[in-house]
Amino acid sequence: MASYQSLTKEELLQEREKLLAEYESYKSKGLKLDMSRGKPGAEQLNLSLPMLDALNSVSDFTAEDGTDCRNYGVVDGIPEAKRLMASLMGVQPDEVIVGGNSSMNMMYDAIARAMTHGMCGAGKPWMKQNKVKFLCPVPGYDRHFAVCEHFGIEMINISMNADGPDMDVVEKMVNGDEAVKGIWCVPKFSNPSGITYSDEVVRRFANLSPKAPDFRIFWDNAYFIHDLYEPRVELLNLFSEAKKAGKEDMVLMFSSTSKVSYPGAGIAALAASRRNIEIIKKQMSVQTIGYDKMSQLRHARYFKSVDFVHEHMKKHAEILRPKFELVLSEMEKELAPLGIAEWEKPLGGYFISLNTMNGCAKQVVALCREAGVVLTPAGSAYPYKQDPNDSNIRIAPSFPPIGELAVTAKLLCLCVKLAAAEKLIKQKM
Amino acid sequence: MASYQSLTKEELLQEREKLLAEYESYKSKGLKLDMSRGKPGAEQLNLSLPMLDALNSVSDFTAEDGTDCRNYGVVDGIPEAKRLMASLMGVQPDEVIVGGNSSMNMMYDAIARAMTHGMCGAGKPWMKQNKVKFLCPVPGYDRHFAVCEHFGIEMINISMNADGPDMDVVEKMVNGDEAVKGIWCVPKFSNPSGITYSDEVVRRFANLSPKAPDFRIFWDNAYFIHDLYEPRVELLNLFSEAKKAGKEDMVLMFSSTSKVSYPGAGIAALAASRRNIEIIKKQMSVQTIGYDKMSQLRHARYFKSVDFVHEHMKKHAEILRPKFELVLSEMEKELAPLGIAEWEKPLGGYFISLNTMNGCAKQVVALCREAGVVLTPAGSAYPYKQDPNDSNIRIAPSFPPIGELAVTAKLLCLCVKLAAAEKLIKQKM
Repeated sequence: MASYQSLTKEELLQEREKLLAEYESYKSKGLKLDMSRGKPGAEQLNLSLPMLDALNSVSDFTAEDGTDCRNYGVVDGIPEAKRLMASLMGVQPDEVIVGGNSSMNMMYDAIARAMTHGMCGAGKPWMKQNKVKFLCPVPGYDRHFAVCEHFGIEMINISMNADGPDMDVVEKMVNGDEAVKGIWCVPKFSNPSGITYSDEVVRRFANLSPKAPDFRIFWDNAYFIHDLYEPRVELLNLFSEAKKAGKEDMVLMFSSTSKVSYPGAGIAALAASRRNIEIIKKQMSVQTIGYDKMSQLRHARYFKSVDFVHEHMKKHAEILRPKFELVLSEMEKELAPLGIAEWEKPLGGYFISLNTMNGCAKQVVALCREAGVVLTPAGSAYPYKQDPNDSNIRIAPSFPPIGELAVTAKLLCLCVKLAAAEKLIKQKM
Repeated sequence: MASYQSLTKEELLQEREKLLAEYESYKSKGLKLDMSRGKPGAEQLNLSLPMLDALNSVSDFTAEDGTDCRNYGVVDGIPEAKRLMASLMGVQPDEVIVGGNSSMNMMYDAIARAMTHGMCGAGKPWMKQNKVKFLCPVPGYDRHFAVCEHFGIEMINISMNADGPDMDVVEKMVNGDEAVKGIWCVPKFSNPSGITYSDEVVRRFANLSPKAPDFRIFWDNAYFIHDLYEPRVELLNLFSEAKKAGKEDMVLMFSSTSKVSYPGAGIAALAASRRNIEIIKKQMSVQTIGYDKMSQLRHARYFKSVDFVHEHMKKHAEILRPKFELVLSEMEKELAPLGIAEWEKPLGGYFISLNTMNGCAKQVVALCREAGVVLTPAGSAYPYKQDPNDSNIRIAPSFPPIGELAVTAKLLCLCVKLAAAEKLIKQKM
């Protein structure tokens, strides 16, 4: 079919008739599907079942350092859990704190501490500073932005290129404005665009010269081992690069096993310079006696080595890859020829970022919802939920079974076409 | 033996000689024992082993409401975990949030949120108020005081009577000073004194008329089911009493299974009015997607009912009771006749609070440490670690095996005698 732009008003009206009829038939199916969040599907959850047998009533609960994991103590994680997370994150075990079940919680806590006590001993509490700003590469992760909004931190959109955030703007703002205290990054398989930062972008991050001594790069490496294909995509190690520049205090890196073992029952980790770690540990020890060491031990015992983890992640990939490819091929077939939408083809992570024609995203999401398919609300990937172009839709293909996903993908493409046709018709009136 | 006070200087010098010789023989034993924290002993940890078999690789992970506990979601806890904690705490399930592994963490977070956002929508952020004060019944729990110190909250000592805090002073300060925003209470088997608040004290708490709209009672019911004897000690339900007075927004109650199942791998809960819960849930949902539902499910499946939990706690009591009684009987035998120390006989909880002669506590702790026994540092039970009388020592008899405890108790009494003798000798010089 020819691109929608090339159609006459009459042709578009006919096309809309056809699309509407098809849409009504979907509505009559009474669908009830959810593609709103990056949740693993049931098949993936089954992959980590053997981990649940790693600890039972006859296990030995002694960590390598002699700690009885059933009792109080050890605020920063047992040695074997620290070593596992450190080796996956490319840092040393003493550069890691293993926390609770959520890296998001660790990020929130880091910012909450900065609000009341300043960031890791550098500078005044953010609540006592005139203004605190964060740079937000967009589209980005809604929960990052929600933390900033919660704490009244002003968010500044930074546009994303194919190799990462626009570093010219990042450098200018970070190096020139003392109110800029942080930047949110999902550097590998970025949420939602799926892109991975290039070596050059990582090096430019490592060499930032922030005007604010309490500026930190929030490096949320959520999808650090979540490749869909072999060979794995290599992300340059920001921490090593920052060390070369003597700037490792500027970096806070986060990861978790939420999508390796279990969301909500995984383990999360923060990696940072020894200086930062020392300060954070001291502050954390006021908040808690320690996180769940049984969960840490369960993970360390089951996920024996980095190699074992990568093998495990291949099994996730085998389940996820067909889901991504199904949605992408449907979009390729249905949308690409019409010139009404754009997207990246992600090599990992949990999302496909779809850009419709400007002004159509909200309508597409509403149309899908009316037909029984819940997508992430349009605008979610932007600070204050404001997508300036109303064009971005985050698609999360992981959760639905593949049979349902086929229906969903078709419905999604239909709704994108319908919204585009209506927009073009209006333009021609 | 006669009381030390009645001895002459010569007799005291002789007594000291004898005690020093005995002390030296302890030192030569090369002891290495820890009585510093209220940690369950190994035998207690074994009681909950069957819980670890409640979930394994062939379990059903579906919560009562259909939630797959292995996946994301449910910020306030799965229904069965909420119901379990609610029934143990004497509130309704929708008046409970089940959190992570630590009630201390929930208390810290409640105060951290109040610092940055105000307390549950009442009043300005505490960081934007001139001064924030907390009342601290003493002796009390060191970690409570550490949170206040961390956030720069001024702490005011409130003396404890045999039936709870001095309510005349509490009422005067709460009802008269808008800067007073909270009070720390461990109402049952108080840490460390072991006393339980009387019905009258609880009723007076429920009927406080705080000048500050953002005043909250931090009711840390850590030992709510941790009785050593039958029948169980009944603590009047503050929440019900506060409801009668229409003042339930003033109450935040905390409990956990840390000393029911596992410290660090238990589940914690906050109980509060529906109004408070709603605000807290909303704020919490910025911090985390949800706590560990697998841990919640494991607890709910194993600890089937309130009756089951009470039976389980009896097994804890059977292990703990002899330990408490051993220390108490040693003190009764060695110290009571000498008139140099005072203590309560706790009916539950994890501590014995020993008051030496004024000015002796630090010395006793130092003497014990030199002989290889670590006690909680003297002064720990007071804000800013300042015991105005230097007389309070918190004894935690739970952790050491009973054989070691016998040695420790003897050494402790010896050190109390030695410090007292030296003090009295100095007075007579």
